[in-house]
Formats: sequence, C-alpha cells, structure tokens
Amino acid sequence: MSIRTPDPNPGWLNEDDLYEARRRLPMVYVEAIPVRLDPLGCITELGLLYTADTEGHFYRTVVSGRVMYRETIRAALLRNIEKDLGSLVLPQIPPSPTPFTVAEYFPYPSETGLVDDRQHAVSMAYIVPVSGECSPRQDALELSWMTPDQVLSPEVQAEFLGGRERLIRQALAHLGHTG
Amino acid sequence: MSIRTPDPNPGWLNEDDLYEARRRLPMVYVEAIPVRLDPLGCITELGLLYTADTEGHFYRTVVSGRVMYRETIRAALLRNIEKDLGSLVLPQIPPSPTPFTVAEYFPYPSETGLVDDRQHAVSMAYIVPVSGECSPRQDALELSWMTPDQVLSPEVQAEFLGGRERLIRQALAHLGHTG
Amino acid sequence: MSIRTPDPNPGWLNEDDLYEARRRLPMVYVEAIPVRLDPLGCITELGLLYTADTEGHFYRTVVSGRVMYRETIRAALLRNIEKDLGSLVLPQIPPSPTPFTVAEYFPYPSETGLVDDRQHAVSMAYIVPVSGECSPRQDALELSWMTPDQVLSPEVQAEFLGGRERLIRQALAHLGHTG
Amino acid sequence: MSIRTPDPNPGWLNEDDLYEARRRLPMVYVEAIPVRLDPLGCITELGLLYTADTEGHFYRTVVSGRVMYRETIRAALLRNIEKDLGSLVLPQIPPSPTPFTVAEYFPYPSETGLVDDRQHAVSMAYIVPVSGECSPRQDALELSWMTPDQVLSPEVQAEFLGGRERLIRQALAHLGHTG
Repeated sequence: MSIRTPDPNPGWLNEDDLYEARRRLPMVYVEAIPVRLDPLGCITELGLLYTADTEGHFYRTVVSGRVMYRETIRAALLRNIEKDLGSLVLPQIPPSPTPFTVAEYFPYPSETGLVDDRQHAVSMAYIVPVSGECSPRQDALELSWMTPDQVLSPEVQAEFLGGRERLIRQALAHLGHTG
Repeated sequence: MSIRTPDPNPGWLNEDDLYEARRRLPMVYVEAIPVRLDPLGCITELGLLYTADTEGHFYRTVVSGRVMYRETIRAALLRNIEKDLGSLVLPQIPPSPTPFTVAEYFPYPSETGLVDDRQHAVSMAYIVPVSGECSPRQDALELSWMTPDQVLSPEVQAEFLGGRERLIRQALAHLGHTG
Repeated sequence: MSIRTPDPNPGWLNEDDLYEARRRLPMVYVEAIPVRLDPLGCITELGLLYTADTEGHFYRTVVSGRVMYRETIRAALLRNIEKDLGSLVLPQIPPSPTPFTVAEYFPYPSETGLVDDRQHAVSMAYIVPVSGECSPRQDALELSWMTPDQVLSPEVQAEFLGGRERLIRQALAHLGHTG
Repeated sequence: MSIRTPDPNPGWLNEDDLYEARRRLPMVYVEAIPVRLDPLGCITELGLLYTADTEGHFYRTVVSGRVMYRETIRAALLRNIEKDLGSLVLPQIPPSPTPFTVAEYFPYPSETGLVDDRQHAVSMAYIVPVSGECSPRQDALELSWMTPDQVLSPEVQAEFLGGRERLIRQALAHLGHTG
C-alpha cells in the first residue's frame, strides 16, 4: 500500500478501502436523537426518520453517521443532523462532549445485542433539542414527531432495525421517561 | 407546633421557621451556570452575577436558589433564572434531570470545602444555555459575560465566595475546558 | 419556635418537627441500587428489598434514606446501605458525586409520577456495586438478587410502590439494559 | 486492496495497513484513569505511568489503547489495564458504558488542543477504581500513585504529552476535585 496515486482528498478513504477498513477496524459514529422541548426542558416529542432498506422493508431510525478523519464530534453531529433533517432545523448541539450512552454495533452475532452487518461501529449518542423546521432527507419517506408514549408503544418499538429501539429507550430513560 | 393560625401559603415556611429549619435540615438548592454557545455547541461565554454582601464586599456568583415545597427542579431552575436574569433570557432548561454535579455547602468548617454560613445546602448544578437578553436582578450590580479563559483567570477566580470558583471550574471541565 | 428546651442533638429535628417540616420543605434523600458485577463491569444481579407496609402489603424497594443535617451525600449513602444491607456488604460508593438520576417524589397527585404521601423528597440515586455478604434489615422480609431480565419482568415491576419501578428501569437503562 | 494473501487474524490490520488507516480514519481508543478510593468512595490517589518516548524524553501518561475490531469497550478497557498495570490489579470496570468525557486527539495543529501526531483518535475516558497490586508495564519506568493535589501541581501537570494534563484535570473535576 506504499505506492499510491495522489488522492484528491487524502484524509478520506475511497469506497473500496472503506469497505475493507469496515471489516478490520471499529468505525467511529455519532447518533443524534432529535427532540422538541417545552419551556421547562421536558421532552414533548422525539423525531424519527421513516425509511426503507435496499430490499424495500420500511423501518424507523435516528440521525446517524460516521465521524470523518480530522472531523470533531461536534462537527460530525451538525453535519449529519443537517444532512438528515435539513438546514433549517436549528439544532442545539449539547454543550458537553459526554454522550448519554455509547452504543456498540457488531456484525451478527453481536455481544451487545446491537447489530450492524456492515461493520463494527462505536456510536456516541446525543440528545439534540431542535427548534426549527425539519424536512426529511431525500431517501427518507418522512420524519415523524411522536410523544414519548407513542415511541415506547410496542408497535413503534417493533419498527427499528439492529436493536436501535433499545437506544431510544435509553435516551428516554435518561430524560426521565420509562413508559 | 400543633396549634397554628391558618397559613395563607400552607406549603411554605415563614421566615422564623425557615431560619430554624436551616439549622436542622439540609436545604434543596439548584444552581444554574448560564452559558452562550456557538452553532457547534461550544461555550463562548459564561454569565456571572456581580453583587455585594451585607457588608458591602463585592463578589461574583451564579444563579442560585431554593427548591420550594412541591416545586419541581425544572420549575425551580426556571423561576430562579428568571428572577436573576430577567424574563427575556430564553433559557434552555436541560432535557435531562441529571445535574453535572451536586455541590454540598456546609456551615464552616466544611468537609467539602464549600461553605454557606446560613445552612447545609445540597445544590444540584446545571449548565443552562441562554439565547435571549439578560438583565441582572435588582440587587446585582451587573451581569458579566466572560470567556472560559477569563473566568479561569486568577483574578476572577478570587472573586467568588464559599468555594463557588470550584463549581465554576467543574462546570467548565464538564464542557471540556480546563484552562 | 424561639423558646425550646435544650436539644441533645441540636442539629437534628425531633419527630414532631420533622413531621411538620415534611409538609413544608423538600427533604434531601439518597437512593442506592445495589448491583453485582462481573469482571467486565457488566451487571449480573440487582438487589431488591422485599418488605411490608403498615397495612401488611408486601412490596419491593431499594436502599433509601434521608440525608441528615451536616451529613455528606457519601456518608448518607454508606450509612443507609449498611442500615439496609448489613455491615459486611462492602459497597463501592461511586467515585463521582453525580447521581445517575434525580428522582422527585411528591404527595399525591404528583407532577412526576413518583409518589410519597409523607413528603416532597428530592432523591439522588446511585448505582452501588457490592462485593460482600448482604443481610436484609430487620423490618425487611428478604433481600432478593435478580437478573436484569427478572427485574424488568411485569410481575416484579408490579411489586414496587410510588413509581419506584421507573427508577429501577432508569438505572438499568443507564447500565445499558432496557429489557 | 482486493487481492490478499490469507490473513491469520482476518479481523485485524497488519502494521502497514494500520499505518495507512491511521491517516484516513479516526481510531477508537479507551483511556483509563486508575484511582484508589477510601470507604466513602473519595479518591485518595491517582495512578500515573512514567515512561519515555522514542527520543528518550520522560513523560507521564495514563492507561490508553486501541479498541480492536469486534472487541467491546469493556473488554478493551480490561485488556489495556492489565497490559499496563499487570494482572493482579483488580480493576472495577465501571458499570455504566458512559465515559466521563470523550477526548479527541488530532495530528498537529489540533482543533481541540489534544495532539497525537500518529493519528486522529477518539478516546472514551473512564475512571477505574483498582484495589489490587499494580506493576508498571515493561516499557514504563514506574507507576506513581499521587494525591489529587500532587497531580494538579504545576510540576506534574507539565510532565504530560499531547495535552493529557487536561484529561487528568477533567477526571479530577468530575470526582469533585479542582485543586
């Protein structure tokens, strides 16, 4: 790997190399749970993306994305939030860098119960209050705002992939909601 | 204490009883560190009140106040912030009820190094982003917005009472700033 | 309240005054969730007290108690753990003073869903690993060690009072377990 | 990268590929601050490794290491602690997966002030109580146990590399110590 043609973006991996790296190294991810708050800081609604996988199965998910080389966690959070929710979302990136939890996704079979077949992802998860207008990203069918009780209902809990319903329950428990 | 004249506000203590209770029971307090954030959630400025004690000595402090009987922590935070910073302050009360630290103030000599001569106060401390206009409360000389480096300077650190400069350093460390 | 007979323990309240104070001031509490951990720090079991109320109804609960005047949170945690679990319990009081959550109990009707008919209690809750022998306190029928899945079962969740099953779910979510 | 000889440990990178990946992807790290606690959970001492870089300059550091492919954070913490402190150290891996902070190291110039010239490392940092016997790893000169005040002294603070003295100050602030 020592002789390479010059790379226009030398800090980032091309698709092939990224595919390989994903089978060799844990990837750094961030996940953002968008929430709407009342004036006392209580969560009123949680935003979920509704999208489809490559086989056409629909599922719900949260804002999620890789941290790029030389990118800070804060910058990755903002970039992924704007990518998924649009540029008018007015997110409040948390003042502290400490996530509310760290989610560890593994290819099946997973020791943690969280599964990502493409890779081993270590994902720092943050709750992000948003106050602006959200529009779902192009490949998402819609962005749904739900109350904590709706999100914790068995119907909605069954619509996540990879165990992400557990991340959602952890986020709500962190905010004081356990259903 | 069984015979009492009717109390217009039966859930709260009068001044005499509060004076006594303060020598017998730990009091529940909240403290709020007001901060201004940039779009990435990084603290740019921290708000400090500049005020005088009964003997005319000036000192810096943060938003602080008692939690009243039957009042939630969130309501106490909002009430004390609006009391100290005005009603146009637009605070973002944190979505999680977990404080960044719990400060324990004792009458001198204090086991924790934090001192309050009037009482034993257990104070849950929160970092509160504010986006509106702040005006200091009537008995405060001014509200100063300072950068983390200014707040951590020896001059400003020497202007707090009761060990509160340590609370400020803890708040900044929680946000990733250690000077 | 200005004329009093000398008090043998002047910092603490007698029963009558405590009864009154409980109707006037929020009380400072600590709660401890005792856990057993494997060598990787994963919870294997959670300890629950099984006890009866004054009317003979059985319920499950956790270590809980008031913080006394001039007592630190750490000392209150250790005292209440040893009172409820015995003196051979070898608890690991957490190195950080930050609780995993703050539970707010109110007389019915409660804004938070957590109820304590005697008082308004602000309770800082901690997860406490224990490695020694535990024996339940005198008024408790038994101390049960259960796996997270057992604790989260509907049967056990129904055996708590005052909404404390929610505190338990928050504790387990904080440790990464959401059932 | 599509044609490769079979790899005896297919999940891990060889040295050359790891060298390349370090210039293309953020690496997942864990850092552990070993502490000794008194029975109330207060830190009495913090353990620092004293070692030398390739040019013979001495510096202090903490337990630190990469998270391997398919390795959990807990397993990486335990492996790196035993590698650096020996197998008799009896660490108490924290029950919660949430780190006290996330440190972001970048090649110079660094946006965060934390520097690692080899790579972009995203490091989840944990405070780890230890109760056993510690022996420094082979390439470390010694393991020193210091009080918080000693660690916060200007002399010791000047002996860290890459800005890690800030991580130490954050750890101590999280435990309630700010010097």
